[in-house]
Amino acid sequence: MGDITTVAGRTLALADLHASLTDPVLDAMNFLNEVVSRFPEALSFAPGRPSEGGFATDDLARHLRTYTDHLEHGLGWSQERVRTQLFQYGRTNGIIHDLIARTLAHDEDIHVSAESVVVTTGCQEAMLLTLRALFARPDDTLLVSSPCYIGVTGAARLLDIAVRPVREGGDGPDPEAVLEAVRRTRAAGGRPRALYVVPDFANPSGASMTLAARERLLEIAAQEDLLILEDDPYGFFVRVGSARPTLKALDRERRVLHLGSFAKTALPGARVGYVVADQEVVGARGERTLLADQLSKIKSMTTVNTSAISQAVIGGLLIESGCRLREANAEAIAFYRANLNTLLGELDRHFPAERRRALGVDWNQPDGGFFLVVNVPFIADAKALEDSARNFGVLWTPMSDFYLEGGGERQLRLSCSALTPEQISEGVGRLAAFVHERAARSHR
Amino acid sequence: MGDITTVAGRTLALADLHASLTDPVLDAMNFLNEVVSRFPEALSFAPGRPSEGGFATDDLARHLRTYTDHLEHGLGWSQERVRTQLFQYGRTNGIIHDLIARTLAHDEDIHVSAESVVVTTGCQEAMLLTLRALFARPDDTLLVSSPCYIGVTGAARLLDIAVRPVREGGDGPDPEAVLEAVRRTRAAGGRPRALYVVPDFANPSGASMTLAARERLLEIAAQEDLLILEDDPYGFFVRVGSARPTLKALDRERRVLHLGSFAKTALPGARVGYVVADQEVVGARGERTLLADQLSKIKSMTTVNTSAISQAVIGGLLIESGCRLREANAEAIAFYRANLNTLLGELDRHFPAERRRALGVDWNQPDGGFFLVVNVPFIADAKALEDSARNFGVLWTPMSDFYLEGGGERQLRLSCSALTPEQISEGVGRLAAFVHERAARSHR
Repeated sequence: MGDITTVAGRTLALADLHASLTDPVLDAMNFLNEVVSRFPEALSFAPGRPSEGGFATDDLARHLRTYTDHLEHGLGWSQERVRTQLFQYGRTNGIIHDLIARTLAHDEDIHVSAESVVVTTGCQEAMLLTLRALFARPDDTLLVSSPCYIGVTGAARLLDIAVRPVREGGDGPDPEAVLEAVRRTRAAGGRPRALYVVPDFANPSGASMTLAARERLLEIAAQEDLLILEDDPYGFFVRVGSARPTLKALDRERRVLHLGSFAKTALPGARVGYVVADQEVVGARGERTLLADQLSKIKSMTTVNTSAISQAVIGGLLIESGCRLREANAEAIAFYRANLNTLLGELDRHFPAERRRALGVDWNQPDGGFFLVVNVPFIADAKALEDSARNFGVLWTPMSDFYLEGGGERQLRLSCSALTPEQISEGVGRLAAFVHERAARSHR
Repeated sequence: MGDITTVAGRTLALADLHASLTDPVLDAMNFLNEVVSRFPEALSFAPGRPSEGGFATDDLARHLRTYTDHLEHGLGWSQERVRTQLFQYGRTNGIIHDLIARTLAHDEDIHVSAESVVVTTGCQEAMLLTLRALFARPDDTLLVSSPCYIGVTGAARLLDIAVRPVREGGDGPDPEAVLEAVRRTRAAGGRPRALYVVPDFANPSGASMTLAARERLLEIAAQEDLLILEDDPYGFFVRVGSARPTLKALDRERRVLHLGSFAKTALPGARVGYVVADQEVVGARGERTLLADQLSKIKSMTTVNTSAISQAVIGGLLIESGCRLREANAEAIAFYRANLNTLLGELDRHFPAERRRALGVDWNQPDGGFFLVVNVPFIADAKALEDSARNFGVLWTPMSDFYLEGGGERQLRLSCSALTPEQISEGVGRLAAFVHERAARSHR
């Protein structure tokens, strides 16, 4: 922050800026993003970043070429038209919407028109557009499965949208608790508009909804006139059992908006995500559009359109996979499965059952994904994290950042996606040393 | 919009969605973006898109390579580190902020720390972040030079920000009119927070501020505690005279936020823009940060970070130019100058002085940029445009879209940036036929 002490002239008071800037949610997100860089030597269970194992820098040029070849030779476009596609402003809702729709059909048994897919600058923009479109009145309330990914609560904060947390159980959000929250929201004068949920291997909890819970949630959504914002970045990464159908695949009534990301299944650097918004919107004169068409109006005021270059890279990658991204992720799926198994095994090894009980330590056993949660017998806050990083060389994420309503003070999130098995093993050893030291200190 | 007539289940009322979706500003933006595709055969003076003349699809791979070579050989990074830079989530405020700061120093005599540059997903996101940070209270009011670019009024609409237009004169916004608007806003109970202005060759009017007006505007900003949001996408493209200093180059008190775009000087498809936010922000406990650091928190909730691939392409292009983008644009500058001269010449040819007076037609003579405004003796609305496109094969933009307060009903904007001289000549001929027919009809 270089020369700010020598500033002449205009100084702004933080208190005079938008209230989101003093919200702990936004600070937490920045903290997560930058914590790794503050302790470069520490082993980090903090970020949910994907492994880079399958990627080489030269892939970018190859994917670009695959995409332009597809336009030129597959679709018969002239070189000038291809050039325009990459160079110019483009279609607001994206240029690879058709490839994404085809991929969703193959991978997820989600069958939607290409026109209902809005390609976005990462899934984060998809959340922002969706929230902006759906939340119109001060009493409109967003329900979120809690603990909750801070991307969505942060976006809600930017737009001054009221949020009500619905506490998760071991299998993710309990549909009956959602129903209860809907009723409480109404009783308090609010209008429950939508529920945000990550059904598979949630960030941060690692929890997954059972098939029965998914079906019941859709029933409740129909009965209570609730929309569901389904975010599914980790669904491919099954550890035990088999992949469950997404809420969108089960959705018969277009109550689900399906938010998608290529950050975990392709590369985060492209910043390409999407939202399937196939709901029908009826205007004052009875004119009918797709919700995707409405999102387009908003997108033209946030980013105009998603980078054509980034879309071309992701498009090339989809084409190369035959629009079967799950198959193309076979190695990644095996890698994350092995990593999560290694993490669970190392936790078992360092905290055998008896010691676990004595210390008051335990953790959940997610069916897949990047994350699990450890309960510890001390306050696992930013201060504890600093100590852990500096003195034990290991990073993790305080769970309390993910609870809007308080909670998670004695919980930490471990992510194993960006580590090697050796690093996981070493990291859990360091974590065990830290936990033992802390536990001993808190017993003193 | 394929299968929407067969939708089962959830239907949303447009009236129940956010009010911005029924705002004409957002419709106008979509209309501008898609009007070209509706009349592919028409000659189009409508969009402010840059010429593609200097671009080849293969440039993308070369720019990528230039950027990665710079990291590897220029900065001595390992291949792994380069890979991470392109593949992963990255620094929220961008990875080419240093290259942009260097370019601003060379091209604009703007000297700011790299840390004060926020790289954004196009200039549109820069507007969104800036407005979100600065506008906190319901009475906070944005002044806009009017007629105004709809990107900024649209973004304000998304965030429910109050906007007050300040009518432009022939030389752009009159500082005394700005002062008057500040006082009127205060008298009406509002808090004037910032003025949005395009000082050079504004979109849509083509008007430019004199040097004296720039200096006076900065004085007024200091006196009235107003921030200035300076948007300068067209500053390079001088037709007559020489380039004038930007408001930021003249700013001694850090009252100006400088919004930048590479859409016109590099390529729109990359969606890379930026904002220089070197203001100091003081927190409740006296802690000091840059406004850029605050914008970072918001950006992590809009797009997380700007596509690393897009940044690498723009970064490579900047490196190739020695961070002297104005020089690299020499051919483009000559092209746009010639085009604007051709447009003015053809207007003179088709509407000689006498006929001009008889018809009640005239136009301004911008010192540069992409746009000029024609006054016509009939209502130049969407209906007239449709007629012009269908029956005369020529597209333009109704100016009334750019006035929040009403106005411009008998004005149309012509853009000459994406046409050849031959197309301009042919297009003005078609426009003349249309104008003559309309004028005759309105005299009947």
